[in-house]
Amino acid sequence: MSETTKQVEKEFLDYVKKMEAYKEALALIYWDLRTGAPKQGMEQRSEVIGMLSSDVFKMSTSEEMASYIAKLSGAQSELTEITIKTLMECKKEYDRNKKIPAEEYKEYVILQSRAESVWEDAKEGSNFDMFRPYLEKLVEMTKRFIDYWGFEGNRYNTLLDMYEPGMTVEVLDEVFGQLREKIVPLVHRISQSENKPETGFLFEHFPKEKQRDFSLEILKQMGYNFQAGRLDETVHPFATGLNPGDVRVTTKYDESDFRTAVFGTIHEGGHALYEQNISMDLIGTPLCDGTSMGIHESQSLFYENFVGRQYSFWKKNYQLLKSYSSGQFNEVGLDDFYRAINESKPSLIRIEADELTYPLHIIIRYEIEKGLFNGEMEVKDLPEIWNQKYEQYLGIKPENEAQGVLQDVHWSGGSFGYFPSYALGYMYAAQLKNAMQKDISNYDQLVEEGNLLPIKEWFTEHIHQYGKMKKPLDILKDVTGEELNANYLIDYLYEKYSNVYQLN
Amino acid sequence: MSETTKQVEKEFLDYVKKMEAYKEALALIYWDLRTGAPKQGMEQRSEVIGMLSSDVFKMSTSEEMASYIAKLSGAQSELTEITIKTLMECKKEYDRNKKIPAEEYKEYVILQSRAESVWEDAKEGSNFDMFRPYLEKLVEMTKRFIDYWGFEGNRYNTLLDMYEPGMTVEVLDEVFGQLREKIVPLVHRISQSENKPETGFLFEHFPKEKQRDFSLEILKQMGYNFQAGRLDETVHPFATGLNPGDVRVTTKYDESDFRTAVFGTIHEGGHALYEQNISMDLIGTPLCDGTSMGIHESQSLFYENFVGRQYSFWKKNYQLLKSYSSGQFNEVGLDDFYRAINESKPSLIRIEADELTYPLHIIIRYEIEKGLFNGEMEVKDLPEIWNQKYEQYLGIKPENEAQGVLQDVHWSGGSFGYFPSYALGYMYAAQLKNAMQKDISNYDQLVEEGNLLPIKEWFTEHIHQYGKMKKPLDILKDVTGEELNANYLIDYLYEKYSNVYQLN
Repeated sequence: MSETTKQVEKEFLDYVKKMEAYKEALALIYWDLRTGAPKQGMEQRSEVIGMLSSDVFKMSTSEEMASYIAKLSGAQSELTEITIKTLMECKKEYDRNKKIPAEEYKEYVILQSRAESVWEDAKEGSNFDMFRPYLEKLVEMTKRFIDYWGFEGNRYNTLLDMYEPGMTVEVLDEVFGQLREKIVPLVHRISQSENKPETGFLFEHFPKEKQRDFSLEILKQMGYNFQAGRLDETVHPFATGLNPGDVRVTTKYDESDFRTAVFGTIHEGGHALYEQNISMDLIGTPLCDGTSMGIHESQSLFYENFVGRQYSFWKKNYQLLKSYSSGQFNEVGLDDFYRAINESKPSLIRIEADELTYPLHIIIRYEIEKGLFNGEMEVKDLPEIWNQKYEQYLGIKPENEAQGVLQDVHWSGGSFGYFPSYALGYMYAAQLKNAMQKDISNYDQLVEEGNLLPIKEWFTEHIHQYGKMKKPLDILKDVTGEELNANYLIDYLYEKYSNVYQLN
Repeated sequence: MSETTKQVEKEFLDYVKKMEAYKEALALIYWDLRTGAPKQGMEQRSEVIGMLSSDVFKMSTSEEMASYIAKLSGAQSELTEITIKTLMECKKEYDRNKKIPAEEYKEYVILQSRAESVWEDAKEGSNFDMFRPYLEKLVEMTKRFIDYWGFEGNRYNTLLDMYEPGMTVEVLDEVFGQLREKIVPLVHRISQSENKPETGFLFEHFPKEKQRDFSLEILKQMGYNFQAGRLDETVHPFATGLNPGDVRVTTKYDESDFRTAVFGTIHEGGHALYEQNISMDLIGTPLCDGTSMGIHESQSLFYENFVGRQYSFWKKNYQLLKSYSSGQFNEVGLDDFYRAINESKPSLIRIEADELTYPLHIIIRYEIEKGLFNGEMEVKDLPEIWNQKYEQYLGIKPENEAQGVLQDVHWSGGSFGYFPSYALGYMYAAQLKNAMQKDISNYDQLVEEGNLLPIKEWFTEHIHQYGKMKKPLDILKDVTGEELNANYLIDYLYEKYSNVYQLN
């Protein structure tokens, strides 16, 4: 290796390490804001956030960065693999940020923050017209950005690629089409079923502290490392990896519905396992993170659905749950409990949806986003389109815009292309489970015994450790031996819900 | 105002604001480390701390800073008072940091961190010889630094000035001399007294959650603003002001001694009131902080001793305490409770000392530090000197070095000149109380009613709001009309302890 390249490589890695340090400080600030930071300190804290974010942004687009990219891109044969991948991440970021004229970017950032606060009021008053001009402007500016960034095939592909590198409309149209075609009739059959589970007992009083204790037990079973994490309370649950030695889970407690905390914790715990098990070699680089939104979501949904909502999981854990509860399950057998927590019912609100109907909520959003960026839909028509699709896919219709097109925060922040990751993660999870069962043939038995560590180890070996060193679709291919295939999820849902609803 | 000065002033203030933003991020990181940050994340978190601290250090000694100081120092008539004081703070910091050759400073920082970890082991093994070479080197380097910084009168004055601007050996020799002369015989008389309070009931089981609930009630009485703060658990209690809208208190719970949490919370609450009530105008400048260690300590000790340990305070609050306890006070009258929580007993450990003996612990450390820096004492003789002084002032002698010269962390971090602030704060507090009572003549009645807000308002008006805009000794002079006077504290202690121990 030439002495010069070696030096430049070291300087580059130090430079990147500094950016990561700022990001870690920011991650702690955000965690703190969502777990109890005093309100009156917010204004000044926002200044701090602004300062640190602007440091990171400036460093990512600086002439120094440009020079590292220029010098090192031509010398890849002399670099370590970690440096090469780090360089590629930095270059992607640099290009993204540099291609937009500074003035336009500034305008966009201001628009974003205004739009979010207008959306809050619009949702409060269930008034889409109030939010409409902001959404129109956000779509318009994002379209212009896509032109700056460039696109292949479909404009919307550029947005998809931001959250799920390599994902395209072509792929999604196919898999989402299959999902929709198969799930809609199943949802319909279930709505008509007479074998509906009893669920009343779910909603009895379950003290918060006891829910917390139970949640901690389950995290422990999952193999969550408490020396490298902690569990806190929040309004909107999340997991955050400050570094692999500090990955925090938050959950929400509803004393009249224990499911919120329990399934919420399992879900976030799945995200956390990913971040805790990224290879230490990647610390201080942008590779020390989940490879994509979709793969991240595959981990949380795997644990939530393919572990937490399985019959086998509750064989032992139902006793444990009972021991923490105040007696609400005394008269309820395991079979009835299992059916109750797997109730499926078309609903208007995405985040309250069950395992079966959830993908339909996502598909609706995907079809709308795609329509907007291909010019096939206009913002003004969204409330109407939204309602039609809910009626068509789920058989129900929002009574107002707050329950409809205004329900999610994503668009107000300009996050277009994000929604598909949720359903992708679900499909990945089903496909991964199929592959896992080839290696772990006694899967159900392990889950039944509460011995979840082999599952974590399998994921660490095949996914976690790599961080961003491998692309999402490469991981899927390498681990499962095939491309994305919606059938694993479809088959799973058919089997499970035929059973839960005792469809002939 | 000339256009140029105006521009430079604005740039300077923006520059300073950025430094303060980094400091706020650091303050949050430190709070987090001490309230439950996962252990395995520490190593990487240290990198983040190093990065941010070095940003602040570089900015405080940069050429840009030098240029602001040069340009603005000559144009003071055109600047606001806040800018002038900010400039003075920055200049002080700049001079301090710039006068030490970079190589020596680096050596010192490494020494500091090694010395701290060696001290931990030395204390663990009660082995001063292990720590001795590090302490010798720390003293030697600090002496050299004093030569770089310069000094007036006494070398040790330069160290005192770091924590208590304007304080000198001349003043301290006098007031500490008076204190020692009066307190030593009082401590002696009390040791001989036959009227010792019963204290057994203090140590019964008091559940942590209940201690917390009571502590919260007391913070509320004090006027602590929970919209601008929160109470958490830690090993070594502290208060930290991230900004005036976010001032956090931490406390420690000992289930067999409720006093730890209760008096600890009141003490830290006193610090917190100071930080919550600094004028908003000072946010984003280094003036948005307590003016000195001593004045800060005057606030915490005022609340701990002149409120929390007063008979009047417990007239109502004893009932409240009883209601949270599990019955340990059922057979105990208010008078006996009051005497118990004011028990005085010579002890070896500073942080466990009572109100009366505490100043003696400080005076011993002061006399030793002064001796070291004046060349009248040598590090190798410290264990012997330490033990002699304890015997002479407190009538007891450590059985080993861990209980003696190795007990405090301060010296291992090179913090010489810090200890006197504790006793200064106590004297300030007594002197301030005397002044306060001229304005608030029904002080005892207010305390009895739990109506502590007028006390907070008085402090805010005379001290809190100014932050570092006023120097500690100016505050004392302006508020009390006189120089530092040890007699207020001496009189208070005589009166109180004559009463508690029923000395003729």
